[in-house]
Order: sequence, then C-alpha cells, then structure tokens
Amino acid sequence: MTTKPQPIIFALNANRPLAEKIAQVSGMPIGQATINHFSDGEIKISIDQSVRGKDVYVIQSLSNPVNDNLMELLIMIDALRRTSARQINVVIPYYGYSRSDRKARAREPITAKLIASFLQASGVNRVVTLDLHAAQIQGFFDLPVDHLQPSRLISNYLHEHHLDDDAVVVAPDHNGVGRARAIANRLELPLAIVDNREPDTSDQVPETVIGSVAGKTALVVDDLIVTGRKMQVSAAALRQAGCQRVIVIATHPVFSAETPAKLNDQNIDQVIVTDSIVIPHPEQIPTLTIISVGGLFGDALKLIQEQKSTHRLFRGGTSDGI
Amino acid sequence: MTTKPQPIIFALNANRPLAEKIAQVSGMPIGQATINHFSDGEIKISIDQSVRGKDVYVIQSLSNPVNDNLMELLIMIDALRRTSARQINVVIPYYGYSRSDRKARAREPITAKLIASFLQASGVNRVVTLDLHAAQIQGFFDLPVDHLQPSRLISNYLHEHHLDDDAVVVAPDHNGVGRARAIANRLELPLAIVDNREPDTSDQVPETVIGSVAGKTALVVDDLIVTGRKMQVSAAALRQAGCQRVIVIATHPVFSAETPAKLNDQNIDQVIVTDSIVIPHPEQIPTLTIISVGGLFGDALKLIQEQKSTHRLFRGGTSDGI
Amino acid sequence: MTTKPQPIIFALNANRPLAEKIAQVSGMPIGQATINHFSDGEIKISIDQSVRGKDVYVIQSLSNPVNDNLMELLIMIDALRRTSARQINVVIPYYGYSRSDRKARAREPITAKLIASFLQASGVNRVVTLDLHAAQIQGFFDLPVDHLQPSRLISNYLHEHHLDDDAVVVAPDHNGVGRARAIANRLELPLAIVDNREPDTSDQVPETVIGSVAGKTALVVDDLIVTGRKMQVSAAALRQAGCQRVIVIATHPVFSAETPAKLNDQNIDQVIVTDSIVIPHPEQIPTLTIISVGGLFGDALKLIQEQKSTHRLFRGGTSDGI
Amino acid sequence: MTTKPQPIIFALNANRPLAEKIAQVSGMPIGQATINHFSDGEIKISIDQSVRGKDVYVIQSLSNPVNDNLMELLIMIDALRRTSARQINVVIPYYGYSRSDRKARAREPITAKLIASFLQASGVNRVVTLDLHAAQIQGFFDLPVDHLQPSRLISNYLHEHHLDDDAVVVAPDHNGVGRARAIANRLELPLAIVDNREPDTSDQVPETVIGSVAGKTALVVDDLIVTGRKMQVSAAALRQAGCQRVIVIATHPVFSAETPAKLNDQNIDQVIVTDSIVIPHPEQIPTLTIISVGGLFGDALKLIQEQKSTHRLFRGGTSDGI
Amino acid sequence: MTTKPQPIIFALNANRPLAEKIAQVSGMPIGQATINHFSDGEIKISIDQSVRGKDVYVIQSLSNPVNDNLMELLIMIDALRRTSARQINVVIPYYGYSRSDRKARAREPITAKLIASFLQASGVNRVVTLDLHAAQIQGFFDLPVDHLQPSRLISNYLHEHHLDDDAVVVAPDHNGVGRARAIANRLELPLAIVDNREPDTSDQVPETVIGSVAGKTALVVDDLIVTGRKMQVSAAALRQAGCQRVIVIATHPVFSAETPAKLNDQNIDQVIVTDSIVIPHPEQIPTLTIISVGGLFGDALKLIQEQKSTHRLFRGGTSDGI
Amino acid sequence: MTTKPQPIIFALNANRPLAEKIAQVSGMPIGQATINHFSDGEIKISIDQSVRGKDVYVIQSLSNPVNDNLMELLIMIDALRRTSARQINVVIPYYGYSRSDRKARAREPITAKLIASFLQASGVNRVVTLDLHAAQIQGFFDLPVDHLQPSRLISNYLHEHHLDDDAVVVAPDHNGVGRARAIANRLELPLAIVDNREPDTSDQVPETVIGSVAGKTALVVDDLIVTGRKMQVSAAALRQAGCQRVIVIATHPVFSAETPAKLNDQNIDQVIVTDSIVIPHPEQIPTLTIISVGGLFGDALKLIQEQKSTHRLFRGGTSDGI
Repeated sequence: MTTKPQPIIFALNANRPLAEKIAQVSGMPIGQATINHFSDGEIKISIDQSVRGKDVYVIQSLSNPVNDNLMELLIMIDALRRTSARQINVVIPYYGYSRSDRKARAREPITAKLIASFLQASGVNRVVTLDLHAAQIQGFFDLPVDHLQPSRLISNYLHEHHLDDDAVVVAPDHNGVGRARAIANRLELPLAIVDNREPDTSDQVPETVIGSVAGKTALVVDDLIVTGRKMQVSAAALRQAGCQRVIVIATHPVFSAETPAKLNDQNIDQVIVTDSIVIPHPEQIPTLTIISVGGLFGDALKLIQEQKSTHRLFRGGTSDGI
Repeated sequence: MTTKPQPIIFALNANRPLAEKIAQVSGMPIGQATINHFSDGEIKISIDQSVRGKDVYVIQSLSNPVNDNLMELLIMIDALRRTSARQINVVIPYYGYSRSDRKARAREPITAKLIASFLQASGVNRVVTLDLHAAQIQGFFDLPVDHLQPSRLISNYLHEHHLDDDAVVVAPDHNGVGRARAIANRLELPLAIVDNREPDTSDQVPETVIGSVAGKTALVVDDLIVTGRKMQVSAAALRQAGCQRVIVIATHPVFSAETPAKLNDQNIDQVIVTDSIVIPHPEQIPTLTIISVGGLFGDALKLIQEQKSTHRLFRGGTSDGI
Repeated sequence: MTTKPQPIIFALNANRPLAEKIAQVSGMPIGQATINHFSDGEIKISIDQSVRGKDVYVIQSLSNPVNDNLMELLIMIDALRRTSARQINVVIPYYGYSRSDRKARAREPITAKLIASFLQASGVNRVVTLDLHAAQIQGFFDLPVDHLQPSRLISNYLHEHHLDDDAVVVAPDHNGVGRARAIANRLELPLAIVDNREPDTSDQVPETVIGSVAGKTALVVDDLIVTGRKMQVSAAALRQAGCQRVIVIATHPVFSAETPAKLNDQNIDQVIVTDSIVIPHPEQIPTLTIISVGGLFGDALKLIQEQKSTHRLFRGGTSDGI
Repeated sequence: MTTKPQPIIFALNANRPLAEKIAQVSGMPIGQATINHFSDGEIKISIDQSVRGKDVYVIQSLSNPVNDNLMELLIMIDALRRTSARQINVVIPYYGYSRSDRKARAREPITAKLIASFLQASGVNRVVTLDLHAAQIQGFFDLPVDHLQPSRLISNYLHEHHLDDDAVVVAPDHNGVGRARAIANRLELPLAIVDNREPDTSDQVPETVIGSVAGKTALVVDDLIVTGRKMQVSAAALRQAGCQRVIVIATHPVFSAETPAKLNDQNIDQVIVTDSIVIPHPEQIPTLTIISVGGLFGDALKLIQEQKSTHRLFRGGTSDGI
Repeated sequence: MTTKPQPIIFALNANRPLAEKIAQVSGMPIGQATINHFSDGEIKISIDQSVRGKDVYVIQSLSNPVNDNLMELLIMIDALRRTSARQINVVIPYYGYSRSDRKARAREPITAKLIASFLQASGVNRVVTLDLHAAQIQGFFDLPVDHLQPSRLISNYLHEHHLDDDAVVVAPDHNGVGRARAIANRLELPLAIVDNREPDTSDQVPETVIGSVAGKTALVVDDLIVTGRKMQVSAAALRQAGCQRVIVIATHPVFSAETPAKLNDQNIDQVIVTDSIVIPHPEQIPTLTIISVGGLFGDALKLIQEQKSTHRLFRGGTSDGI
Repeated sequence: MTTKPQPIIFALNANRPLAEKIAQVSGMPIGQATINHFSDGEIKISIDQSVRGKDVYVIQSLSNPVNDNLMELLIMIDALRRTSARQINVVIPYYGYSRSDRKARAREPITAKLIASFLQASGVNRVVTLDLHAAQIQGFFDLPVDHLQPSRLISNYLHEHHLDDDAVVVAPDHNGVGRARAIANRLELPLAIVDNREPDTSDQVPETVIGSVAGKTALVVDDLIVTGRKMQVSAAALRQAGCQRVIVIATHPVFSAETPAKLNDQNIDQVIVTDSIVIPHPEQIPTLTIISVGGLFGDALKLIQEQKSTHRLFRGGTSDGI
C-alpha cells in the first residue's frame, strides 16, 4: 500500500511573507533550498532535501526585479524536474509581463506567452495565479491553470468598512470595464468609466467621466498600479466630475519609486491593494490598506492537493468569470 | 539563378466570393483543388496542380458550419505540407470559436487555443486574420499573425455617408469598450456604454446607458452579431435613453436563422457588416450594408508576398492596437 | 494512504446507447457534462462535476456528422486536461476518416494521421478503438492504443446461428482479404475473393470470383458498409458464381441515405453489423441484425482500469492480429 | 541576386552502386564524407566539404546490417543539420523494419514508426522511398514522403520479355493481394492467391490456390524476399495446382544466407528483383534477374530539385496507390 | 486503496550477468521478454507478461555491437510505452558514443545527444547510468538522470589491497585530469599527468610526464579502455619516468580484439575494470581484476523505487561531482 | 528573380561596442530597435524597421546583469519571429550560466541547458558563440552552433609581444588542462598545472604545481575570470615554484567589484582578456590588455551570410577542438 508523501512548499525570494502565510493556511511545510545570487548576476539553486516522488508548490511573484525572479523560478523548476519531483505546481501571485499579452503594434513580442512557453519547457505541471491582466493568458498554457479572483475578498472588505455606501464603481480606462463590472455586480453598485484615451502614456487629466458620479464615493478598480499616474489622473477627473471621495483599488501593487508621490495625492482618499507583491516601504503611503491573499492561496492549495474542486470557493461570480 | 515561383491562392468553401476578390486585388491566381463532402460527413481533398516549392495562401472563414469549415482548412494544410508547398499561409477572415478564448468558468475548454494548436500541428507558417474577438489570441500562436483591422474601412464609410454627424459611439456591453473607443478616436466622437450585465444570456433590456446619448445618432460597435439579441436590447435601451437614430455595426456577421427578425427591429435604423462571412440571404434585412474587406486582404497578401511591412496600411490607430 | 478515486465515463453525442451499455458492463458511472451546439455550429462543453485527479473514459464514435463529433471529442479532452483529470482515455468505437490512412494519389492528405495528431495535442493518454480500417493506424499514435477485434463476437454469432454450415468466407475486394482470412480461420472455412478491380468507385458487377463458392453460403466480410454499393455488386457476382445464400457482415455501419435501398437487394439474404455506430432507422433494412460491442468495450475498460492485460480476451487470433 | 547552389548526393555504405547510378541519372555530384566504423561498433562520420546552404540527398538502404545502416543514416543527418545544410532529403530505397508497422500482438513495438520518429528528430526535411511494405507508413511522417513504385518498371520488363504470355499474377499470401492486383491491372492478367494461412512462420506447402492457375505461367509478386521460404512453398503449391512455369518477383531482395538454397528450387523458373538492396553473391542464384531502380530514383531527384511534380512519372496506377 | 504493483527488471542482451546481480541486490524480479535477431539484422521484441501500470527498469549497456544494443533498447522502450507501463526507467551501465559529445571539428555530429533525443522520443522517464565520459551529457536530457560514480568502489579496492602505498594517481592525458583528481582526493595521493598531445590517434610514447612519479606505483585512471593503446604508451612513459609499478584502471572495458595484446605489456602490472560491460575472454589478460557495479546499481534501484535520495550513497565526493 | 535582401545586425544592450566592431567588419548595417527597461524591471522591445524576409543577427553577451540581458535577447527573438524575419541568428560572445552545465551535486539544475531550450523555444535558427566553458554545450542545441575559438588570436598576441619566450603554459586547475594544452600546442611550449583541489571555493594557495616552471614565464590560461581569486592563488603558487613572471589570460572578463583588487597583485605581471564582455572600469587594472574579438565575429558573420565554411579560419587546431 502506498502512502502519498507530504507535499512541500518552496518559497523563492520575491514574496516570502506571502509564502509563509500560504504554508500556514495550507498546512504544508516549507522545504529547504539554497538560492545564491553571485556577483555576475547568476543564480545558483540547490535543493537541500529529497523531493523524489513528492508534490511541490513553488511560490514566486514575477515582480520587480522581474527578470531575476523569473529566472529563479525557472531554474528552480529545472532542479525539481531533474531530481524527480512528482508534480511541480507553481504559484505565481503576480504574473509579470502580463500587459505584453498581444501585439499592440507591429513588430512587438508577446512576452507573457514567452514566459508561459518557458514555464512549460521547464517542466511545470500546473499554474496557480491571481487576477491576470487578461484572462486569455490562461490559453497561453496547455496545462491546468487555477486562476484565482480577489473580487470577493475586496468586495467583502469594502462592504465591511461601509466604503460602498452611496458609491459608484469606476473603471479608470476603457480596458478595465469588465473588472469593474465584476466588483459592481457583487456590491450592487452602478458603474462609471473615466474616458482616458491614452491611459498608458498620457499625463493629462481626461475631460470626461462616462456615467453619473457626482456626490458619490468613487471606487476606482484596476488590476495593477505601477507608477500611480493613471490613478492620479482618474482621481482628478472624478473630483472634477463631483466625486465626494475617491478610493483606488488594485490587486497588484507593482509600485515603483515614484508611486508613493503620485498616490499621496489630495484627490485620493484611500489606497487598497493585496499582498501579491511585497511593498518595500508601505509606510510611505499613509492611506494604504493591504488585504492578504494568503488565505485564498492557502485554501486553494489545500483543495488542489486533496483533489477537490476549487471553483466554488474562488469564483468572482460574473458571467465573465472575472 | 532562381526565379521565385508565382504564389497561389486556394479558396475553400466557406467564402469563395471573398477569395475571388482577394485574388483579384492581390493579382494571385486561384489554384485548382477538388473538395468532396461524402455522405458520412467526411471531407476528401485533392490538389489538382503542382505546388512544390510554391507559396500558397489558403482562404477559409471559420463560420457556420464551423466544424466542417475548420476540418476543410486543416485537411487542406496537411495535403499542402505533404506535397512540398514552400510556405503555407492561411487567411482566416473570421476566426470561429474566438469567444472560447479563456476559461470563463471552471471546467471549460479554451477552444480558440485548441484551433491554434491544430493549425500549428498541421504545418501552417503564417496566419492572416481580421478583428479577433480578443487580440490575445495572437499569443495562442508561435508564428507570425497578421491581425488586420477594419476600423479605418468602417470609419471611412460612416464619415463618407455622414453617419457620424452628431453621433456617439456605443459599446453594447462592458467587454467591447476598447473596440468602440478605437472607432470613436478615428471619428473624434464621444463614447457611451450600454450597461448590459449579462450580455451573453439575457433578453432583458438594460436599464442604464452610461454616458450621454440623448438626441444623438448611436453607432453601436461590436466585433460580431450572432443572434442579434444583444444589438436588439441595446437599441431598445438607447432609444429609451433618447437616441434619435441607432446604427449597429459589426465586423463579422455570424448570422443565424433568427437574426433577421431581431435586426429588423424598429429601433434599429441601419445594420453595417463586412463580407468576412457569407450571409446566405442578405435581402432578409432591408437595412443591411455590407462593406468588403477584399481589398484589405488583397493588399495585405501583396505586401506579405513582396516582404514589405503591412503595419502602416492596416493599423487601427489606437493605443490598444485595435 | 491514498484511495484511487472512482473512474468516470463521459458519453458524448455520437453513440449514447453504446456508452450506456459500456457503463453498465464496466460498472463505471456516467459523468455529468453539458454539450451545447449553437446556431453558428460552435460547440460549447462544460463539465458539471469535479474530475480532479480522476481517470476518465470519453466515449465518442467518429461517425456522421464526423467533423462535429470529432470536435466534440477534442473540445471535451481539452476541458478535461485543463481541469486536472488524472488520465484521459478516449474510447472511439468507430474511428472516422480511417480510409484516409495513406497518400493513395499525389497531393492528398492523410487525415487519419491528422486526427491522431490532434488527439495527442489535446492531451489524450490512451485510445481504445475497434477494428481499424488498417492496423497501421496504431502507429499514428505514440501512446497506448487498445485495438479491440470483433472477430470472435461475429464468429460466435455465425456459428450459434448455424450460418457457417457449408459456407465460404468472402472478401469483397482485394484489400480486405486479411480480415476475411481471420474469420475463416476461426470458423475453419475456405476463402474466396470477389475480384473487384475498382471497389471504391465502380458500380459494375465484377466478372470474377476467385475461389470456389458454387452452392455455398457466402459470408462476405468487410470492416465497414457506407453506401452498400460494394456489397450489392459483390452479392450479384457471388450469385452469378452460384452461391446459394449471401450474408454480408461489417463491423461499422457507416450508413447513408441510400444504403437501405442497396442492402435490401434480393441477392442479399442477411446483413450483420455491430452497434459501434447508431443506425438512425434500422427498421428500413428488414434483414438487419445488430451485434452489440458494449460487452467487449465494457470488459476492456474494466481490465484497463484494474491494470490487467486485455490481450487474451480480445485477440482475433490470426497471425495478422486482426 | 541569389544563385541556388548545386545540390549534393551523399552515398552511405549500404548501397553505393545504386547511389552512383542515381548520381549519374540526376546529374548531381557525390559529396565527400568519411565514415569510420570502430572496433567497438561505433560509427564516426565527418563531412569533408562545405554544405552550408546546400540541398543534400543522403542515400541509404536500411538493409542488413540494418541497425548499423540506420545509425549511419541518422548520424549523417545530425552532422548535416549541425553544419547548416539547407534542405536534408533522405533517399531510402529499402525501408527496413517496415513489417513492424503495427502491433500484431499485444506488447509489441511499432519499430517502423520509431524509425520515422528518429528521422524526424534528427532533422530530415523529406523522405524518398520505394514500395513500402504498407503505404500507411507514409503517415508515420509529418513531412513530405515521395513514395515511388516499381510496378511500371517490373511490368515493362515482364512484357518485353514475353513473360506475361498466358500468365496469371499470384499473391503468395492474403496480405499481398493489393500489390499483385496492381501488376495484374497493368498487364491485364487474371489474379490468383496462394491460401497460405501462416505465411510468416510455416514451412508447410499450402493446400489451396484460390483462382485458376492450371497450365499457366505464375508471376508471384511480393514486396520482399527474406529467407525465400514463402516463395518456395508458394511455388510448390502452384505446381501442385498445375502451373507450367513459376516466376517469383519481389522489389526488395532482403536475402539471407539460406535464401539462395530456397530460391534455387526446381519449382522456381526465374527470380526477378530490383537493386534497392545490394545482393552480396548474385551468382549463387543462376536464375536471378536484377532490374535497376537507379533511373527511377535519379529522375525523381531531378524533378524534386527542379520543384516539378513527380506523380505522373512514378504512379503505379491502381486505386490503391500501389 | 491502491497497492503499488511490484516493479520489474528487463534484462536485454548486452549484459545479462550484471542485470542478474542488480535484480538480486534490488530484490526486483526479472520479467519475461522474447528478443529475436533475424537474418536480416532486424530485432523483434515481444514482452511476455503484463506490465500495465507497473514501473519497469530496462538494463542495457551500449557496448559492442553498440548499434544493435541501442536499437534493442529503443525498441523495448517503445513496446513498453505502447503496452502502458507506468514508469519506464532505463539503466545504462555504459553509455556508448559518449565520446561524440561535442563537435570537435567542423561538420561532425554529436551522437551522444542524438541518442539522448531518441531515448526521450521513445518514451523514457528516467536514466540511470555510470561514469559518463563527460558529466555534461546529463544536460542532453530533460528528464532525471541518476549519474552513479565508481570512485568509492575503486578507491576502496585499491586501499584494501594496499595498492595505494607510495602511489601517485596518473591521468593518461590532459582530458582526464578531473577524474584522476577525484580518486587522488579519496586516497589522499599526489597527482601526475602523462603529457600525451594526441591521445586519440598517436602510437608514440609521450616524452613528458608532468609531476613526480619516480619510484612510485602509478595508478593510471581513465573512464574507458578501448584498444589499450593509450594505456600502453602511458605505461611506457611512466616507466621511463622511473615508476616502480603501473596499475591501469578504467570503469568501462570497451575492449576490442587487439586490447589483450596491448594490456599484456611488461610495463603494466595490473588491470582493473568494472563489469559495466561483459568482457568476452577475460582469461586473455592474466592481470585483470573485475570489480562489480551490481551492488551499486542494485542499491540505486532500491532507493529510486522507494523514492529515497540516492545522492549520499553514490557521490564521488569531489567538487566536480565526478 | 529574387534578390536576397540585405542582412541586419541588432545590437542589444550588453555589448554595443563589440556589436559596432562586428557591424563594421561584416559590412552589415545595424538595425533600429527600441529597448525600454521600465521601473518594474520589465523590458519592452519594438523593432523600428521592417525585417520581413530578412536574415538578422542579434548580438548580446549574457554578462552581468545576466538575467536582464538574457530576457532582452529572448524577447527580441520573439519579436523577430512574430514579424517574419527569415533567419534569426544570435551571436552570444559570452554564454552566461555556462558553468551550470551539469549536475555537480544532487538536486541541482542545469541552467546552461535551460537557456539553450529557451533560445530554441523562442525561434532561433543558429547560434554563434565563443569559447564555451565546456564544448559539450553545443549538444544542448539541436541547431547549428558556430563555436569560435580565441586561441589563434591569443597565441598570435603572445608571440608578437615575445611573451612566449622561455615560457610554460599553465592550467590554473585540473579542469582547464585541455584549454591550456591547445595554447601550448600553438606556441610549442611545455605545460604545467596548478594542483588546486578546490578551485571553486578555496582561498588557500595550492601547495603543488605539477610540471616544471622554475625560472620561466607562466602563461596561466582559463576561459573566464570572475572574482580573480583563482588567478591570484595560482600566481602565488607559481611564484613559490620559482616562476619569473606570471601572465594571466582569460577569454571572458566576467569581472565583479572585487576583481581589480585581486588582479592588481604583485605576483601578477600582466592580465590579458578579450572584449567579449564590456569591462566597466578597465583603468582600475593597470596591467590589463584587451584583445578584440570583433574581427573574429565579423569575419564569421560574413562567411555565414555568404554560406561559406567557417572552419578553416577559426579552428583552435587541437585534437580537442578547443
């Protein structure tokens, strides 16, 4: 009779605090591995315990420095494959390069696909991830992708703190309307859109907000905040349109050095993100709230390992699956 | 010294009139092939002229009956590969199954990716297609995809016929806002959205239109019309919101038997589509206008064959590349 | 300690009655899945119960409408793979396109190989099938193929009903001699061949029967009956050669609209087929007998699931493996 | 302007005389390569001239010693790929292991497929071969296979030497009826079959010949002669059935040490084979005639290199493509 | 509840005595299979017991005749894959063609990689091997390679027989210094190198030995002995440099017909090898000692099957991993 | 008639000065591309001119920051593939991660292979590189690798500057003896080895130098210098053994911050490297000489583009191919 061996979590360097939460919730131990970064930038990994025949879960966010974090993940997978792990699951709380998901112009790469190809070539058996920039990235893989959604976590938080009173959910540009619609559905709120014609490149405050926002609390929802510029101009536009309060919400805090300055804007009353990415200096943004996705991932891993369905627990609940 | 042999177009059964236009514009001859459909549903293809060492362009829309049309295309590619064609290009004016581009719910397939895998497994070297439901489908392929856009053709038509006077571009649901934004940019028009919460399944007229539409001409833009239900309820909502005129516009007329009844609605003043798909009985919709994409594809094939850049000619011109 | 979870059968649309027999014999439950065919011909599948970590058996004949049935199968496999089924077995009682197994002429495809490639690309782990047109099709796959043979079932039926008294086994053309030889071996009967020079295309009654048939019961054996034309002209030739009785036997009834008329021929005394394919109107052929392969497949699935050898039970017993 | 460089033939060790004939007919030079077989059985190849950017044709029969000849071929292909040949064509006059083309019994390999996989993995672009044991082997490849047929060459020889006067074409067992039918069609002769129930293993003379042969010249046609046993017992059966003269014909002389003794049988009047395989001591069989396929292959290579269709020249002309 | 079935060893023809030792040590039974070599050189394998769902270990050295032994192995793997073995492990005590591990000159193949590609294409899941010519060959595979080292076995033997008293470890050429260094480390002995400038091709005795050897026992260490020429000239050079005694040691006895003559040289006092390869006539070399690696492999298989780490037991202990 | 279009060089960020030399020597223009590194570490590339149907050469060293440089290269390749470049050649003057070319210990990755897999998955057609750490890395690829050698350049420099007078070539550890032997052969010099037992980890000066070095100029040859520690301890050991002068030579200057301090050692008289990697502050090492490999690569690209053999020009000339 076989006893299925205990699964192991390996926590790489991008987000160890989250890995520890996941380990705690899922009840899986964190395995020992040595990860060295050398003076020439090369990464050397060695796994310090036997994983033969075991299921492993490698946890790594593809956040800044994204190329180093990606290579850490890929090298770890190769080491696990060569030492006979049974099933290699990777948990990617933030899937970097996800905005490079199509050729927006001629002669561009599709880097999000390239990463999917590398993960598959390295020997991954399953991917668990959170709130992809585009749900189509699942199709870049030929293997199971568990695509978790933060919408329930975020909605619950907003509701529990009465932030949804007399509120409107706002998409900061035309690309994110589906995501805003999902939160609006959960909270039974109306929807508005900041008509930002060049959301990726312009610093100008858009002239128009489509939909009624005057006198309301604006819950501006996006998947990620990078520089904070888009949120800053959205907040300005919403104030001009008569909003009482502006709360900006994003799953992935891909913050850069300039982000705190932009988010510490008088037009922004609160900033809500998850811990999918470690924020080096959260204290720089006094209005910042961080909701943990550790429980979400921990529950998911437990269900996956017990071969139970994950869909009931984590669905965002819209017809779009977001 | 080598003379590059003349390229050949093969026109499969889904859309021969378009293939003939493309042949005419590109100046490439249409090759001879015999395609039989047998009583048991099997398709047998034989190519009736030598294609050794030649570049071929196979033209096939994945429209109704989509599975038969897909198999025709895949079988043709296999025959071409086995008989030593040099470069196998497929031209897919309408890429069927494109709405199955992600797992919207648990335990669903991603059929658009499956088709991409089959095309690659059959030996295709390049795909030329038009207005994909999601631009991310390009990433389902590891080979060059020339993704043509109809927005200039459509905008020009609207402008030449003064349909953009005092108009607003409308997205019929929250998923299509990016596409509507692209047309609005070209025509320098404002944007509005029909707040349809269950666009894929509900017959109910949405209560809200986000944005100002009263007294205007609504140009409702989508990538495809299937049953016409979504356009019908959008038109009703827009009328309720005070629109003067409603013109519905879609690239791909994926019409079914019930579509004419739905589009022949008093709230809809005009229907504009392209010839990416053959409409069996266009006369059933008196207000229908069909814009040909034959020139667009024909020019593209000429540029590809001459190894010139296609990007300048066909870009839609938005930051989103749509 | 692990308990291996209960395997599940999924019955697609081509042959649900056979799937139910297989489920009954194998003792495996039939799983819940929703298969929709839309107005544009697209198929949408969703699996309605968890299959994580389970072995599944998908049952689908590639019979008319073959392209729809094939796509149903491929889409189902993709859905199963993406939702973490453990082992995906497909049961294909009739493998369509099997006559396209080689380039018979220049510039033809090999569609039977193409289908094998698609099944593999979709993520199949094993194929169970019945009486392939050519045994070499097994080699189109790089995975285990359980190739079941109906010769024992058919021989037993013939013997129990005394149809082999004073009989000769007849191949209706030169391609099927191996299959006829296998039945003849089992029943210890002589062999004859209808010398049909153009079996695939001609309506003419062949002039010659090679071998002695006068005064005997002719048991004409083939793998499939499509139009019935080949059987009709064979029966005529055999009568001319002095046969007393003509019984035509085929594993796969790939019947078309014209088949009943051709098989209801005065020269044909009885028609025997299996239920590998559903015959829409069996009552149109009064002399038709249908032998069920449900037990054969059900036993095979039980043995496979218990990881026991299948070879003893199902071999046809000839040196040719038929 | 580019000048397409001169193609090169590489002749490996299995059949250099045929390679020289092919070179002469096709007008392509034979390239320089050093092939060493070491004392431990290892083969070392180095190519002694530049092949960068050139089309090459590697000629090798997979005859005895088949494993050494196969490895010579595969190693040569790898060397050519790594040194940047433009297009690697392999010419395999005799495709060894072709009888292992299906699982005839449980737990057997399909070696003919394995070889196809290895050829593809090594980097071959095209295969040119002759009279495969089963035409389905073409489908083991996903690349162009030019499958040449010797039936016209053989028929012409028989006719020119009046060997078809009052003759009957005979298949020595039930598997080869299709091939015999092709020759019979060309020569407009009747067909008969030796009813050999265990053609692969038995030494017994079959009791029955199906069809009329008394008083005639029997032209016994097969794809290969290995030990000669099957031909010997066929000849005996045909004599018993009253044949005047027995001529045995096979494309591939896969002779072993015991073959001459078996073919030098009083029942056999003449033996006709091609030079697809070198016969070490042809003088041991006084009645042997060898027809060269050098012209057939040479013409094929010329047409391929000029990118002209090969089908008209080489088809065997039957509905079966043999 | 599942009981993991008993694993099975299959012993192919190259080294059955070693396979039997491995079976004895590992406690796994040897499975029944029939391997026939036919007169035309073709190999036919059939497995004579069910292996469905079982882990199998196929033992085969790629020694002379290397191409036959390789094909035996590949064909066996294909048969196992097609009959549903669960995990196919191959044990290759001697990995032939390992010296063809890079392009040493232009236009050469890399045959060791080719073999790795074929093993992977055939369906192998894991490779267990011994003292590869270059450790980089592990990287030719994308699957787990257990690379066992004989250095502990050899060092222990030398020490127990006091052969390391007043000794120096000698590399017979500059390529093997790493391997000699590993043995020297274990025995705490100094190192010397025979400065053989053309070790692969020259018969000349090198003039120089780098390092102090006068008056000592030279332990000349290499991975393999083929003709014995390199060892013979090394011994001569070492005697000239004043060595008292010369003992030549190699893991793999790839002996040819001329080897005994070369090793029975007055300058060579003892020859030590392992049984990774069967030596046909060991009695021809009176000074020969054979150390068995049966225990090493048997222990490894036991650990692998129990999913325990193998690294502690088998490491050679140098920083180079040799 | 076709005119083969002009090839284009793309110079990525790692080593633009070398790329410019290569462009000058080869006569190929440098193409326009925009490479942005964003605040979150992501790289975005767009190619600013048409490359349809053109041969491109992308030049990138995998030096510090290696992961960023690698991703730049891979993303560029993907962009080129998707925009229909004809042949994608990558020129990698320094192949990073090359020391991770085997599992030196249990549970380690083989990162050099992983990179090869990613390059192939991205669509590369050919690799041109210089002095790989192990020549076996060529076998990690299934495509042509032009492996250039600097030994002639270095030997010529040493000879022209009379640095080889009364000199001995020294390997700084036992792994690099082959490379030292190649330089010794060219200069007709004797060989010695620093008996460094733990070259990768220890700071201790080795006690022994194997071979005669007293009174000579030691030319210490290695493929790369990282920290300089190994060279520093080698120089000390050589001085202790009586060397007059110590010149350290390495192809790839993988310098880190601590390297200048280690190389500015009183025991080291001169340091010679190539420009395969940009050295940020060469002035920090007063004894440093940099030999350019721009001509070597430029000539190679010219020959490749003209489809001429490269082997005569660039071989290092030893039996080892180094």
